[in-house]
Amino acid sequence: MPVGIEMIEYFLPVRSITSEELAVNFGFDPFFVEEKIGVKKLYIAGDDENTSDLAVRAVEKIFIKKPELKDKIRVIAVCTQTPDYQLPHTSAIVQKKLGLGNGIACFDLGLGCSGFVYGLSVVKSFMEDNNFDYGLLITAETYSKIIDVKDKNTKALFSDASAATLLSREPYLIPQKFTFGTNGDGYESLILRPKNMTKPQEANYLYMDGRGIFEFVATIIPEDLRRCLEINHLRDDEIDYFVFHQASNFMIDTLSKKMGIPNDKRIIKCLDRFGNTVSSSIPIAIDTISDDCKNKRLKILISGFGVGLSWASTMLFTKRGYENVRGNY
Amino acid sequence: MPVGIEMIEYFLPVRSITSEELAVNFGFDPFFVEEKIGVKKLYIAGDDENTSDLAVRAVEKIFIKKPELKDKIRVIAVCTQTPDYQLPHTSAIVQKKLGLGNGIACFDLGLGCSGFVYGLSVVKSFMEDNNFDYGLLITAETYSKIIDVKDKNTKALFSDASAATLLSREPYLIPQKFTFGTNGDGYESLILRPKNMTKPQEANYLYMDGRGIFEFVATIIPEDLRRCLEINHLRDDEIDYFVFHQASNFMIDTLSKKMGIPNDKRIIKCLDRFGNTVSSSIPIAIDTISDDCKNKRLKILISGFGVGLSWASTMLFTKRGYENVRGNY
Repeated sequence: MPVGIEMIEYFLPVRSITSEELAVNFGFDPFFVEEKIGVKKLYIAGDDENTSDLAVRAVEKIFIKKPELKDKIRVIAVCTQTPDYQLPHTSAIVQKKLGLGNGIACFDLGLGCSGFVYGLSVVKSFMEDNNFDYGLLITAETYSKIIDVKDKNTKALFSDASAATLLSREPYLIPQKFTFGTNGDGYESLILRPKNMTKPQEANYLYMDGRGIFEFVATIIPEDLRRCLEINHLRDDEIDYFVFHQASNFMIDTLSKKMGIPNDKRIIKCLDRFGNTVSSSIPIAIDTISDDCKNKRLKILISGFGVGLSWASTMLFTKRGYENVRGNY
Repeated sequence: MPVGIEMIEYFLPVRSITSEELAVNFGFDPFFVEEKIGVKKLYIAGDDENTSDLAVRAVEKIFIKKPELKDKIRVIAVCTQTPDYQLPHTSAIVQKKLGLGNGIACFDLGLGCSGFVYGLSVVKSFMEDNNFDYGLLITAETYSKIIDVKDKNTKALFSDASAATLLSREPYLIPQKFTFGTNGDGYESLILRPKNMTKPQEANYLYMDGRGIFEFVATIIPEDLRRCLEINHLRDDEIDYFVFHQASNFMIDTLSKKMGIPNDKRIIKCLDRFGNTVSSSIPIAIDTISDDCKNKRLKILISGFGVGLSWASTMLFTKRGYENVRGNY
């Protein structure tokens, strides 16, 4: 059996802010926040709560269900761009906090909203090549710590969260062929830098060129989705769910229109509940359809895109669907 | 043919400092610097020279030799803990600066001195699983930007450098089975944080617990090396070269003694020429024996260890050696 997704658990910080509070406290337009972005509630890590803490809480939920895994995990990859420290890597801190043994490969992946899809391919192939049975792909960000609270483009959009994805040879979701892409020309579209570039000694804040990112998503991603369908020998009407990165409602709607599937109920949207959780948005969105995925024969297209600019897509077949298509393996 | 190392090129900044200058300008003990550490010259990136710049210069050397590769590279992984920005990832900036196309998977690996060995496994398996023929594993650090110049433990040790390793199906060095390990309990042994922990708003500097790292290397790494030999079914007297991370002469000598091979000419040492270049130290050290590797039937043990704490080892067989051992493939 190839390596795939056996379990997904996620964690949201206790502290949160509602769209009403965003309107009252910061003067943001409620229509913009709730309709255009699609956000009703965002999560904010505690002052002493770091990326490794969010990561650990998500993994603990997996260990509660499968305590025997504590001795079996062979790789922990943490995908984050808000690490606890610039060095060491956050995955080593996660290994320590989980109290796991030393025979574990830990590394961080530096990617944003495309990170889950990239990470799925990286960890899956790493496990298969090294003959590892159990691994964790953790996505975790605390963007709240780098956001300028007066910037409505980012403050009303991003939410702190983590997701732990258990990869094993007993998957309910099996990744198919991947597409990957990068356009570094847009590296400044989402960047952490001093607010005033002429004062480099000042604190760094997240800067987002919303228009630049919109144009990127509207032009490049539909092409990539079509290529992903093509290399996996599927048509869009064969797809049961489209799980796009939860960038914003507006972005998901634009993408759906460009794909000729506007307002389709197969398109997953959960921004209202979680906000844009960066690299955790896809695993969290998958979790919202996990009952279906465990019980039905489904084909799911997932696509991550954002900072870099970077993108990646793949198909996930549910175990039943996979057996159907591929026959014995 | 499996994916392996086809070419290594490295880049050193123009600015440098000699052991004499370290003694005169900073009052360091010349015996300590030249004998214990083993350093005669260190390289320091220019004020406007960032990690992506060093990375690009190393790759350009590969493209000069093989210009046709510019259209064939499918993945660029940059291993660094001193990225240009916290986000976006440095690999996207490298893709831009090299003027490459958009159909490339770019991601950063957050690891230090163990990063080359980890990265070799990550990128090799990623390429094989995605059926990619050409990829770049880039190691690049600019520790000079995070070092407190008054701290002789770090100032007289670390050197800025980059190395670009071309991975392909026409390798001269073929990786065998890997070992990996992590001990997050030692995550504070090498860490970037404010000098005075009670003043978290102050600038971050690299802090190194030399004694803690020494004890880690002296106890854990010999065990790991033996395990690497064991899983690859080799004895230490069958190894032609030992390429340890160039941590310091003292560390390499300690490791050699613990392995029962003190002062062995099979142990590569090149700290005097390059200093401790973090994740680039192993590819640079391999480059010093590249003529031998291309022409002889050799078995090389490589081992990286450091920040995390993290370690990884593998064997590299030269193409002739691989054909000899494995027969047809």
